[in-house]
Amino acid sequence: MQQIIKSDNIIEDIEKAVRSINYDKLYLLTDQNTVINCYPLIEKSRIIQEAVNISIPADDTNKTVENLCKVWRVLTEKGATRHSLLINLGGGMVTDLGGFAAATFKRGIKYINIPTTLLGAVDAAVGGKTGINFEGYKNEIGSFYPADYVIISTDFFHSLGHKGILSGYAEMIKHALIHSEADLQEILSFPLNDIDYSRLNELVFRSVGIKREIVEKDPFEKNIRKALNLGHTTAHAFESFAISKSSPILHGYAVAWGIIVELYLSHRLCGFPKDKLQETVRFIQQNYGAFDITCDNYEQLYEITGHDKKNQGGIINFTLLSDTGTVQIDQTADKELFFEALDFYRDSVGL
Amino acid sequence: MQQIIKSDNIIEDIEKAVRSINYDKLYLLTDQNTVINCYPLIEKSRIIQEAVNISIPADDTNKTVENLCKVWRVLTEKGATRHSLLINLGGGMVTDLGGFAAATFKRGIKYINIPTTLLGAVDAAVGGKTGINFEGYKNEIGSFYPADYVIISTDFFHSLGHKGILSGYAEMIKHALIHSEADLQEILSFPLNDIDYSRLNELVFRSVGIKREIVEKDPFEKNIRKALNLGHTTAHAFESFAISKSSPILHGYAVAWGIIVELYLSHRLCGFPKDKLQETVRFIQQNYGAFDITCDNYEQLYEITGHDKKNQGGIINFTLLSDTGTVQIDQTADKELFFEALDFYRDSVGL
Ligand SMILES: NC(=O)c1ccc[n+]([C@@H]2O[C@H](COP(=O)([O-])OP(=O)(O)OC[C@H]3O[C@@H](n4cnc5c(N)ncnc54)[C@H](O)[C@@H]3O)[C@@H](O)[C@H]2O)c1
Ligand SMILES: NC(=O)c1ccc[n+]([C@@H]2O[C@H](COP(=O)([O-])OP(=O)(O)OC[C@H]3O[C@@H](n4cnc5c(N)ncnc54)[C@H](O)[C@@H]3O)[C@@H](O)[C@H]2O)c1
Ligand SMILES: [Zn+2]
Ligand SMILES: [Zn+2]
Repeated sequence: MQQIIKSDNIIEDIEKAVRSINYDKLYLLTDQNTVINCYPLIEKSRIIQEAVNISIPADDTNKTVENLCKVWRVLTEKGATRHSLLINLGGGMVTDLGGFAAATFKRGIKYINIPTTLLGAVDAAVGGKTGINFEGYKNEIGSFYPADYVIISTDFFHSLGHKGILSGYAEMIKHALIHSEADLQEILSFPLNDIDYSRLNELVFRSVGIKREIVEKDPFEKNIRKALNLGHTTAHAFESFAISKSSPILHGYAVAWGIIVELYLSHRLCGFPKDKLQETVRFIQQNYGAFDITCDNYEQLYEITGHDKKNQGGIINFTLLSDTGTVQIDQTADKELFFEALDFYRDSVGL
Repeated sequence: MQQIIKSDNIIEDIEKAVRSINYDKLYLLTDQNTVINCYPLIEKSRIIQEAVNISIPADDTNKTVENLCKVWRVLTEKGATRHSLLINLGGGMVTDLGGFAAATFKRGIKYINIPTTLLGAVDAAVGGKTGINFEGYKNEIGSFYPADYVIISTDFFHSLGHKGILSGYAEMIKHALIHSEADLQEILSFPLNDIDYSRLNELVFRSVGIKREIVEKDPFEKNIRKALNLGHTTAHAFESFAISKSSPILHGYAVAWGIIVELYLSHRLCGFPKDKLQETVRFIQQNYGAFDITCDNYEQLYEITGHDKKNQGGIINFTLLSDTGTVQIDQTADKELFFEALDFYRDSVGL
């Protein structure tokens, strides 16, 4: 399993990790924002200065086969071998695409993830899922190929802005929900409009720990790892829908809204307690606002979920909860109930 | 590890294998030749009739990212899920590209290889290496991802033609050389200009067995699997060179010629016996003729090997033999000795 490092001195920890690996040439992947906001925090490192830099356009809309080819091409042209090492410095887009490039370049080279978003740190950079979007579908192409190291430092998060923090925080709500009531209470009482970074720091590492524990039990998502899909069937539908309207939304926001839909389904199908539903929904509504859909969009959303990777031949599959910490995987809802949950979502967020 | 089936009834064995797998939708990949020459041998199968057909242009020059995208696109458009099953019906080009598509579609679906060339049967279809060519480099992109079943039937080989048989036979010479003197004698005494198919059948399964034994010991090619690279450092250089001249050569022919070069290096560096060298070289020269290079091409060939995936930072790495059945991996030769071996090659084949 990959090593996850809680870093208090990012340069020192990068150098230690890189030195522990037997490699011939080093490559550093950034996107157009992380090269500006994050690279300066590590560029004093001699080791980093020696790396061949590769930079790609930012955001999930650029997690494409074209940019994947760009990374492959630079690796090829700059003489990378199967003993070369890639460092991904960025959010989930960079670690997903860079991880997949590493998984497939010369049938797999070693790589290190340095997540620069909160979402990357608590979720995307950890657990070995890599990939790209294809033909409008999220993560349609990819592989399971864990980074050798994930080095987490909250130093990078200061330039994220409020929305960036919120996006990652949604995955932390998810982790808390699937883990325990105590975690949920801690997460819902954290003041997101006045962030205490040192307390956030603690919460981040507890959250990564929850993900790691689950991934280790089921690396290829055959069963229990599906717990991490809470909120995600709906989130992916919202994201694909938003892309189809040419106004993409942040993954974490989609997850927060997806949690509203899927906690409602949890309540209806698995008896998830009403008070916990309302408490969580209130927190999300207050912090994340609303993603604008009308009932005219329901059919399209339903169709998109029909194509979701986690579903077999048309049936909509969800991961639900019967209580905080008690996950029910492979639950199904029919179209009618899904539409009812979308109604609940619209009511909750005031649409 | 993958199951290798020696088939006497191809339709029955395909149906048995497919039925043993839990899948939702079936896809069948062919190339423009195998759809004509090989598909008719299995099209009576009900299960095969239900499959969605995908066909791509033939030959190694088409083992490209464009055709990979084509396969991904059909899978996406025709509703494949992570529980779908892909059957690759073709030579090494189809099993390499199709295997890589399966490895990466939705982070990996199950697949079955049905090799239709001798080379595919004794080599490409078995052992989990998948991939495509990229920017002029062979197998630059790929992954280790074994087929669930490899179903081998010599029925397909009748339409191959003499060159097709010879191409695959080169890998059988290689397997014999790395395995034992007894295997080598059997291989070198087989009359290639008047093929006894039932005896070929036996030789094929002995040959696959040698490959399987080695791959099982070292699936990710960290050490002993490199035995299978005998002849291949040079073969890949010849192939890339031929592509750069727009007249690609068959992989197996390149391997046969590469064996001449690398047995010479084996003799010079590891004491491989001269009589066995001469005996093998004679057999190759008589059956495979010559690949036309002059000493003006040596520098280019050297440069290409410098970029070969099996080499670290510029040094040329070879797998050599100190005797039949006794492999010496990670051997190196300098430029001068490599050129001397190319001279020997040209002398041997009468250039
Ligand atoms: N592999 C997994 O298990 C997994 C899990 C969840 C999400 N994901 C993927 O992760 C992606 C979403 O992750 P994300 O939210 O990190 O997106 P992202 O990587 O696209 O980052 C969001 C934006 O923030 C910028 N940015 C990154 N770090 C910054 C910093 N420190 N300061 C300022 N700006 C910065 C980026 O350039 C980008 O514009 C999606 O592609 C999603 O599919 C993968
Ligand atoms: N993955 C591995 O371990 C491995 C090992 C060796 C070679 N390879 C790869 O395999 C490829 C070479 O394999 P190949 O020689 O089978 O090439 P191929 O698949 O390109 O087949 C050669 C030609 O024969 C045609 N053909 C296939 N079956 C036929 C049949 N039964 N009758 C008539 N025509 C037929 C094909 O359409 C093609 O035109 C190369 O791409 C090489 O890199 C991979
Ligand atoms: Zn997520
Ligand atoms: Zn070969």
